[in-house]
Amino acid sequence: MKILLTVLDGLGGLPVKEGKTELELAKTPNFDSLAKISALGLHIPVDVGITPGSGPGHLGIFGYDPLEIEIGRGVLEALGLGLEVRETDIAVRGNFATAEYSNGKVVIKDRRAGRIPTEENRRIVERIRKEIKDVNGAEVIIKSGMEHRFALIFRFREPLPEGSDRIRDTDPQKVGAQPLPAVAETPEAEKVAELVNEFIQKAVKIIKDEPKANYILLRGFSKKPKLKTFEEKYGIRSACVAVYPMYRGLASLVGMDIVNPSGDSISDEIATLKDIWESYDFFFLHIKKTDSYGEDGNWQGKVGVIEEFDRNLPSILSLKPDVIAITGDHSTPSVLKGHSWHPVPLLVNSPYVLGGTSERFTERECLKGEIGIIPAKKIMNLLLANARLLPKYGA
Amino acid sequence: MKILLTVLDGLGGLPVKEGKTELELAKTPNFDSLAKISALGLHIPVDVGITPGSGPGHLGIFGYDPLEIEIGRGVLEALGLGLEVRETDIAVRGNFATAEYSNGKVVIKDRRAGRIPTEENRRIVERIRKEIKDVNGAEVIIKSGMEHRFALIFRFREPLPEGSDRIRDTDPQKVGAQPLPAVAETPEAEKVAELVNEFIQKAVKIIKDEPKANYILLRGFSKKPKLKTFEEKYGIRSACVAVYPMYRGLASLVGMDIVNPSGDSISDEIATLKDIWESYDFFFLHIKKTDSYGEDGNWQGKVGVIEEFDRNLPSILSLKPDVIAITGDHSTPSVLKGHSWHPVPLLVNSPYVLGGTSERFTERECLKGEIGIIPAKKIMNLLLANARLLPKYGA
Repeated sequence: MKILLTVLDGLGGLPVKEGKTELELAKTPNFDSLAKISALGLHIPVDVGITPGSGPGHLGIFGYDPLEIEIGRGVLEALGLGLEVRETDIAVRGNFATAEYSNGKVVIKDRRAGRIPTEENRRIVERIRKEIKDVNGAEVIIKSGMEHRFALIFRFREPLPEGSDRIRDTDPQKVGAQPLPAVAETPEAEKVAELVNEFIQKAVKIIKDEPKANYILLRGFSKKPKLKTFEEKYGIRSACVAVYPMYRGLASLVGMDIVNPSGDSISDEIATLKDIWESYDFFFLHIKKTDSYGEDGNWQGKVGVIEEFDRNLPSILSLKPDVIAITGDHSTPSVLKGHSWHPVPLLVNSPYVLGGTSERFTERECLKGEIGIIPAKKIMNLLLANARLLPKYGA
Repeated sequence: MKILLTVLDGLGGLPVKEGKTELELAKTPNFDSLAKISALGLHIPVDVGITPGSGPGHLGIFGYDPLEIEIGRGVLEALGLGLEVRETDIAVRGNFATAEYSNGKVVIKDRRAGRIPTEENRRIVERIRKEIKDVNGAEVIIKSGMEHRFALIFRFREPLPEGSDRIRDTDPQKVGAQPLPAVAETPEAEKVAELVNEFIQKAVKIIKDEPKANYILLRGFSKKPKLKTFEEKYGIRSACVAVYPMYRGLASLVGMDIVNPSGDSISDEIATLKDIWESYDFFFLHIKKTDSYGEDGNWQGKVGVIEEFDRNLPSILSLKPDVIAITGDHSTPSVLKGHSWHPVPLLVNSPYVLGGTSERFTERECLKGEIGIIPAKKIMNLLLANARLLPKYGA
């Protein structure tokens, strides 16, 4: 049994031209043929009216309740920068900031250090990395992001207790204020908070001479969430093919094996999928650019990615998955230049669908489909049912 | 007010010929006329992707949450064989098995005793029945099923406490293993387990000389679930007209009066419905053969039953129910030869429906209907609302 879940990130849209959405404007002969014989519907990632981030969006389509499970911002940032997050880690997002020292007081003058260039960031991170390997026995892992952002992990020797990441942000959130110390909100977090404060002191000492990035602010202390793996939850071997670190990271949280595609294009990803086809039961294929163009408000770009995917669809279908699902983790309408709350088109194909309800794979045609509008977290059960992997409930 | 809920067991289907489902292939002039002026939709028996057994399927359409209420396998088997199950009972499914005795050890050679003929089963059950009337004060009720199967009830003098049915199966589930003793998983079950072991010893002694069925294995110890009756829950007097014992049993669990139809055909059932029409507010009419043919993969047979029902529809409508609902307890697509997870067509007619949404009563036409796709457990409220029996909620 082979189940393929393809996520076109930010797939759903809104009318952009002549009352038509990006999916409706795209020329998609292969999608159209598949839609006619598939089960269609829409899914609601988190809840009606709720705009999800990438974390909750993916948790939902992986079958986890995004309202029950929280992926902390520190963890998400670390995953997004390609860092591994372990059970022994406390992860946090960092900003370089500009501070002024007067009368022995520190005052934040710019919470983003004038958005220093990314290369500057890398140079400064390297300074810190060279001098701070660990603090109080916890390994320190630091990685540059874009501009003033970085991810920071404190890696302990043993798994950390519940609550050990309940530490207040050190970012005062306003200019002219003093940076805050890391304050533990639970007894379990006290040791960690102490160590964080020691790290801040040491790091600031190193970068004190920088003209702009002479301070650091930390937000979103968090631990890796405890999740059943796909294998534990569904009894299937799963693999992720994704270009962007964030999605590989999210897949790794649920125990998927991560396979790096041979290149960045959709066809590269599909080639990689082919290479590993015999080794797994479940495949999560992630395509990013639908979301990126949506975020930029570039609807022509989004239409282009949909058409590019459509050209690659026959090659995907030639793998002969028993069950194929195509959807998004949320909608990213170009007119909104960002994620949105709108239900996301969903296509499921297997030998056990009704089909024949719709002409195309678009928001409006999906409304006519046999799946209806379902919560994202129920999609996995539908796929497992179509693969005939779920037992009968009750006698 | 008369509400009639007709369940065509396993009603929903999938395309079997020229892309059409059993409902679409059936010639149903009466259904078609009714569908045009009715509220249509589909229901999900348990949850998206979940294939229900008959127990959860019926609990749902009776308005009970099948995820909250469990009907044990022993209870269901007993009901299916037409046994009454009381609050004082522990019910369990039995198999005759073939055991070998060597060095004082018992080893199971065949968990189904070579699937002995049903008449053989009846003869052996009679031997046990004649010699064991009770064990330690609990009455023993035993009834033959098909081939090697039987149902067993231990009837105590008083209602049993919660947890008293938590007893492990004695079936080791593999050939070559020793049968297991009945082991209590709770203190409340200890007395029952002891008594079960004594019964097994006595019964095995009686049938030890049988060439094949010389041992018994027990599975699915269970008590009657505690359910509010229809009268308590909805304040209505309800009756069940069903040919098969299982469905009469399920109806009896929710306190319906059971009326035996004068014969096995759909028209016999309707004649019986007429006879009792003045005595009740709510009628549950169960028609089995749609499911039986679906299970056999005989789509022509299923189409035939749907057409037979259609011919009888005018006679049902002539009773002038205030509210009529027609649906299934789950789908049984002929192509799957079994129950499935697919949403089930639902028709509701009363003077207070919108109507005019659909041309026929089929899976695809129901998708266009005013009810949408709803959980089965919400159907009863819809029927009560159409009967104007539900009060306004809040001021």
